[in-house]
Amino acid sequence: MGRAIKLGVIGAGSAEFSLGLVRDLCVAESLRGSTVTFMDIDGARLAMIHRLAQRYADELGVDLSFEATLSREEALHEADFIINTALVGSHGLGEAWRDEAEKLGYYRGLRHAVNMHQYDLMLSVARDMERLCPNAWLIQSSNPVFEGCTLMTRETGIRVVGLCHGFYGYRQLCEALKVPADEVQWQAPGVNHWIYLTEFRHQGKDLYPRLNAWIEERAEAYWQTFRGELGDTQLSRAAVDHYRRVGLMPIGDASRTFSEWYYHTDLETKRAWYGWLGGFDSEIGWSHYLRRLEERVARIREVAQDASLRVSDVYPPGDPHELHIAVLDSIANDQPRILQVNVPNRGAIAGIADDVVVEGKALVDGSGIRLLQTGRLPDKLMQMVLLARIAKAEKELLAYRTGDRAVLTSCILDEQATRSLKHAEQTVDRMLAFPGNEALAQRFGKQSSSLPEYVLPPLDESR
Amino acid sequence: MGRAIKLGVIGAGSAEFSLGLVRDLCVAESLRGSTVTFMDIDGARLAMIHRLAQRYADELGVDLSFEATLSREEALHEADFIINTALVGSHGLGEAWRDEAEKLGYYRGLRHAVNMHQYDLMLSVARDMERLCPNAWLIQSSNPVFEGCTLMTRETGIRVVGLCHGFYGYRQLCEALKVPADEVQWQAPGVNHWIYLTEFRHQGKDLYPRLNAWIEERAEAYWQTFRGELGDTQLSRAAVDHYRRVGLMPIGDASRTFSEWYYHTDLETKRAWYGWLGGFDSEIGWSHYLRRLEERVARIREVAQDASLRVSDVYPPGDPHELHIAVLDSIANDQPRILQVNVPNRGAIAGIADDVVVEGKALVDGSGIRLLQTGRLPDKLMQMVLLARIAKAEKELLAYRTGDRAVLTSCILDEQATRSLKHAEQTVDRMLAFPGNEALAQRFGKQSSSLPEYVLPPLDESR
Repeated sequence: MGRAIKLGVIGAGSAEFSLGLVRDLCVAESLRGSTVTFMDIDGARLAMIHRLAQRYADELGVDLSFEATLSREEALHEADFIINTALVGSHGLGEAWRDEAEKLGYYRGLRHAVNMHQYDLMLSVARDMERLCPNAWLIQSSNPVFEGCTLMTRETGIRVVGLCHGFYGYRQLCEALKVPADEVQWQAPGVNHWIYLTEFRHQGKDLYPRLNAWIEERAEAYWQTFRGELGDTQLSRAAVDHYRRVGLMPIGDASRTFSEWYYHTDLETKRAWYGWLGGFDSEIGWSHYLRRLEERVARIREVAQDASLRVSDVYPPGDPHELHIAVLDSIANDQPRILQVNVPNRGAIAGIADDVVVEGKALVDGSGIRLLQTGRLPDKLMQMVLLARIAKAEKELLAYRTGDRAVLTSCILDEQATRSLKHAEQTVDRMLAFPGNEALAQRFGKQSSSLPEYVLPPLDESR
Repeated sequence: MGRAIKLGVIGAGSAEFSLGLVRDLCVAESLRGSTVTFMDIDGARLAMIHRLAQRYADELGVDLSFEATLSREEALHEADFIINTALVGSHGLGEAWRDEAEKLGYYRGLRHAVNMHQYDLMLSVARDMERLCPNAWLIQSSNPVFEGCTLMTRETGIRVVGLCHGFYGYRQLCEALKVPADEVQWQAPGVNHWIYLTEFRHQGKDLYPRLNAWIEERAEAYWQTFRGELGDTQLSRAAVDHYRRVGLMPIGDASRTFSEWYYHTDLETKRAWYGWLGGFDSEIGWSHYLRRLEERVARIREVAQDASLRVSDVYPPGDPHELHIAVLDSIANDQPRILQVNVPNRGAIAGIADDVVVEGKALVDGSGIRLLQTGRLPDKLMQMVLLARIAKAEKELLAYRTGDRAVLTSCILDEQATRSLKHAEQTVDRMLAFPGNEALAQRFGKQSSSLPEYVLPPLDESR
């Protein structure tokens, strides 16, 4: 038998996420007796989740306790694990600013402001943990996982692991090649949302030649009828084009939303590359996504209101799709598992700084999380994709950390759609004046027009 | 007394450069008895330089021997030093392709093709040296110094040092502040053309506050009458704006041609930032530069044709402006000097790979060249400027090394003026089809549409 733990869930009002978590938890025998404290700022959603979770466990006769609280402190109190799945302002804040950014010439908007709200939230959770449960693990689930985990591991002493299910994209490749995914050996390192299939074998045989043959012989026919539904872009034209350019197959999010700018310049371009929705994050894809999400949440609400239903019939327990419970169990009960996680690099991928959070497979057990050594990735992948992606993250984090408007402006100047310095500065002004961004405005209040004061660090402190 | 050396000059047909070299050499007592072998593919210019050099030395009664040859092998034979100042196709090839690139939407063109011609030439010189004078030092004088020296030191065993006089820009700052430049302590590390003033002192006192005061109190008046003549952009509006953003004063070329894209989007923008010429490399500045160069070369030709003139009267010996002879003398005669050079980083600047050629001060003596340790540069400078500049160089070098069209296309996709993937691919097609680029077309013949074959390097070779 395993160890009962205390788990706090921040942002537990995400009904779908929380219900999935409860479902996975009920299956995990070794975590019986555990307590889950749901925390959210939306009391109504919280109460619903709380009741659903309790019903689910009761229906299955599983010994789990659930609590709900509006207080983060309570959720953190004596916790062994914290899952942070919170999005500041849910999707609303981002939507409004995106519309505004589109008017400024940035199709589908700019992420900087939303990201920085998330950094505020993430850091504040991690800092509260330092005070209230310094030995707990933080499982970061909401985005941006890459930058956020890098920031938190640099700025606090909390142990952080970022999780994202994007890597399951490799299973779509297996389906296309008609290979049982569970029999496949694969590795897909990188940084979150930018991971690439470096190994892909079945019974010791490299599957890349079969993938190449599929692309040569079947891809065109596949694309003729390809709709590009949500989550269905692993083999989009964009993913295959990106593979041709970079030399390794992008996996999951790398195959859709978070790829190079030129797949995303406008709706027409996005539809050519990603199918009719234009990808998950086009105006069509996104409204589709939100509608589907609403439908699923509405269904959860119905189930919550109808006490005659068994929740576990509507959402039957099964193979977990998220890794959260596996990570919890491996650490809490010293059950070794090889899992795809996001943690500081510490030498796993050559040529990336130790304190950058990378994604890859790791051994997770009672001693913590150890990335498997990846070594040197191909020069092309590093130069064409990863180093640029990391540089972008570093610049945004530097802007956030320093509150230096010149650095924030430099982030905007790096956007392909930026036409001039004036355009960038206008965009920064509008971003900081936008309702909801008052804290950012304060952070970046320092005008970049003031003359810098520079002191070179003495050499002996220089490394 | 010093040691007589044998010096080969590749691309010696640059009359102004070669004459300056002879002038500096005649002043260097310790190099008496040395032999200079001028090599160029233009026999007429070569003969002129040869005669002028001999006249100059004879007039001053200096014991130096001069040879001229069309054969690179002869110039390299038993050489102790090689200076490479050659430009493929002089300026002509670049001009024609730039006009074409402008039609494609790239104001003032794209440098990739010209750079790659230079890489071919540089590598071929360095490889010939491996065969003919493997112990000689190569002094790289023609551009691109940064990428070229990085490439040569990676690909050959030749000892290479890149020289560029851009750093003298600090003297213009001294003039503005009315401080004797020779009494000033300064450091300006970075990569060639992107160097930044990290130290600036007079009699132990930091000069940055005085520079800030000059900017606050006098800069606007200076700019009102500022013409922005060639070489006069150290205190341009662009340089000061860049300083405000980055936190350190850019020096020399960093203050003019080679700065951020948004100072260079069109002529109007360039003139606003750099004065009436729009900088050295605007259409006005560049034609101005070429005309001045022609005038100076015409004057040299006149002097060459008029045996009644003393060359050393027209071009009197004086303080050297270039560092070539100082480097030669320090190495050949074990005369230690602290000089601004470009050599592999090897840990001098933290956070830059060992095998990237950086610029900074070094001790030059009989044992070779040792950079002074710089340590950690400010995060802003690294994130906003240097890492991006290095990434750009690395990608271009990767394209060159691999002949991979996808990497070359990725370089073009990084240009701010690129509007779409199609635009980038068209540009690459046109570049490779352009007259004079046949060797490049062959190099990049591999279409990026073929499917990659990827083999992950085994872990034990991974570092």
